[in-house]
Amino acid sequence: MRARGHRLLDSQVTLAHGAGGKASAALVENVFFEAFGGAALTAAGDSAVLAAPPAGRLAMSTDSYVVNPVEFPGGDIGELAVNGTVNDLAVAGARPLHLTAGFILEEGLEIDLLRRICASMAAAADAAGVAIVAGDTKVVPRGAADRLYVTTAGVGVIPPGRDPGPHRVRAGDAVILSGPIADHGMAVMMARGDLAISAPIESDTRPVHTLVEALFEAVPDTAWLRDATRGGLATVLNELARDTGLGVAIEDAAIAVHDMTRAACDMLGIDPLYVANEGTFAAVVPAAGAEAAVAALVAAGAPDAAVVGRVVAEPAESVVLVTGFGGTRMVDMLVGDPLPRIC
Amino acid sequence: MRARGHRLLDSQVTLAHGAGGKASAALVENVFFEAFGGAALTAAGDSAVLAAPPAGRLAMSTDSYVVNPVEFPGGDIGELAVNGTVNDLAVAGARPLHLTAGFILEEGLEIDLLRRICASMAAAADAAGVAIVAGDTKVVPRGAADRLYVTTAGVGVIPPGRDPGPHRVRAGDAVILSGPIADHGMAVMMARGDLAISAPIESDTRPVHTLVEALFEAVPDTAWLRDATRGGLATVLNELARDTGLGVAIEDAAIAVHDMTRAACDMLGIDPLYVANEGTFAAVVPAAGAEAAVAALVAAGAPDAAVVGRVVAEPAESVVLVTGFGGTRMVDMLVGDPLPRIC
Repeated sequence: MRARGHRLLDSQVTLAHGAGGKASAALVENVFFEAFGGAALTAAGDSAVLAAPPAGRLAMSTDSYVVNPVEFPGGDIGELAVNGTVNDLAVAGARPLHLTAGFILEEGLEIDLLRRICASMAAAADAAGVAIVAGDTKVVPRGAADRLYVTTAGVGVIPPGRDPGPHRVRAGDAVILSGPIADHGMAVMMARGDLAISAPIESDTRPVHTLVEALFEAVPDTAWLRDATRGGLATVLNELARDTGLGVAIEDAAIAVHDMTRAACDMLGIDPLYVANEGTFAAVVPAAGAEAAVAALVAAGAPDAAVVGRVVAEPAESVVLVTGFGGTRMVDMLVGDPLPRIC
Repeated sequence: MRARGHRLLDSQVTLAHGAGGKASAALVENVFFEAFGGAALTAAGDSAVLAAPPAGRLAMSTDSYVVNPVEFPGGDIGELAVNGTVNDLAVAGARPLHLTAGFILEEGLEIDLLRRICASMAAAADAAGVAIVAGDTKVVPRGAADRLYVTTAGVGVIPPGRDPGPHRVRAGDAVILSGPIADHGMAVMMARGDLAISAPIESDTRPVHTLVEALFEAVPDTAWLRDATRGGLATVLNELARDTGLGVAIEDAAIAVHDMTRAACDMLGIDPLYVANEGTFAAVVPAAGAEAAVAALVAAGAPDAAVVGRVVAEPAESVVLVTGFGGTRMVDMLVGDPLPRIC
């Protein structure tokens, strides 16, 4: 019934691939449909038409990805873009449902690289149980982008009864961390190859929605969650302190950092608390639920999940780190940018 | 309760504005919150938490915008990004509800320009009755983008009973066009200033959701709609022919083109059928509803809406233009790209 099958003869992206004509159609059919499946993407022109969602409030999120390099140990820009939006929805308490993806491609981008990244996105979406339902591609001339940028947006549904947020946090609550920190940022830094050192560090990019589900099942009154992406754990805990008017005290010894990652941070003079993660989140639960929360996370596939601190009344709006020697230091919000284009 | 109000002292975007720390917070608070309002954007970390949607199927869409220049007669990249996603939802039969916006900024971008574009996005969202509920900003070094790119995604709800799509189209149906074509593409071309001619042409960027609502009210069994963006009217009608297995016959004399736009197209040897529009859509309605459809569109603010052709059984999967002299010519899909970075 349909005359499909323009062949895609080019090995590189050209400006014609972004013009909405035959070359665009060939790119969409040969790369994007092949990776994501055409059924949902073709329906109703440029919008995906989807079933009515399950009961609950909607959650919506978006992130643009400009990571350099686009492929790195443990992942690539496509997997990152899917997991990042899945995780933003998950830490809002939502069950992720549907994703969209917008691509900005630099003229000359290798089609094979684009295929790899789309395959990686499709696998990540599959692993997270979401569908990539709509997409868009633009092509810009050489020098107007750096290979490719991906922007994902997602929709999820927050089941009735769940209502995490700063308004739920109380002094005395436990602060939980789902895994080791700083792997993603250091993996990307190493992959750039412009440092004097190198180390086999892999990004922690992963979807956290099953961990979050396990946490809510174990501790339904989980008060707050946040994935510790740009700016690292220090930044999200500072935002917690700012948004609640309370303080956060964390223990240095309780925060897991892989040996290789710690060594690389030490050599570069970078504090792992400020390094981006892409599959690690912080959560606040009532102190009485802390043990159950950690047990649930460990059972759901986060073996290093641990209580790393607590919410305190004073010092207000601040994050304090208790060091191994019993001293304390303030953990301020990041000011500069030690690690650009990390996601 | 919150210690807000980092001041934004810079006049240009720096890499630190994308790093997730204090500078990022200042940019978000001083530019994005100011334009879009902070209430929804701050809730629940990186996701917006929204009310349960009204009954109906969800529609979802995304588009990336890389238009050059970013400001042009009749609009800018921000207005375009809002209207484009609103229109993609509308022509799927959906009532647009919520938008997200992802920004990729080139280091050195003027903050004042960003403010203007955000203000324009906020005004466009207001005019379209949608909220921009979540956003993200990345900064890339000079030369890794061209000023700024914006990716919007949107969610809407298709009221029960509406089901437009290629499966509804029958031979004999009328093809309706909501307004004059080719203004957007030519306005952007002129604004680049690298042509030998110039002409005061304004983009047609506008939200079409109220027109679409009026059309469905007048003709509930409206069969198909599509906004004629990249690749122009010729491309969307070719997609209609391809997706239905039917043909489309359009009359040259019935297709409105503003005089100035036609003159510019003629001088540049560009066929207006292939030029992008950003506020003009094609629709297919049963022949019996054609008059009511046009009347409804005219009454709703599209004075130039008209029947421009009909769906035919033969030639199958083709678009045929009937010229003023009674001749016909095939209107094929665009192959090359006469107008890069038009949206």
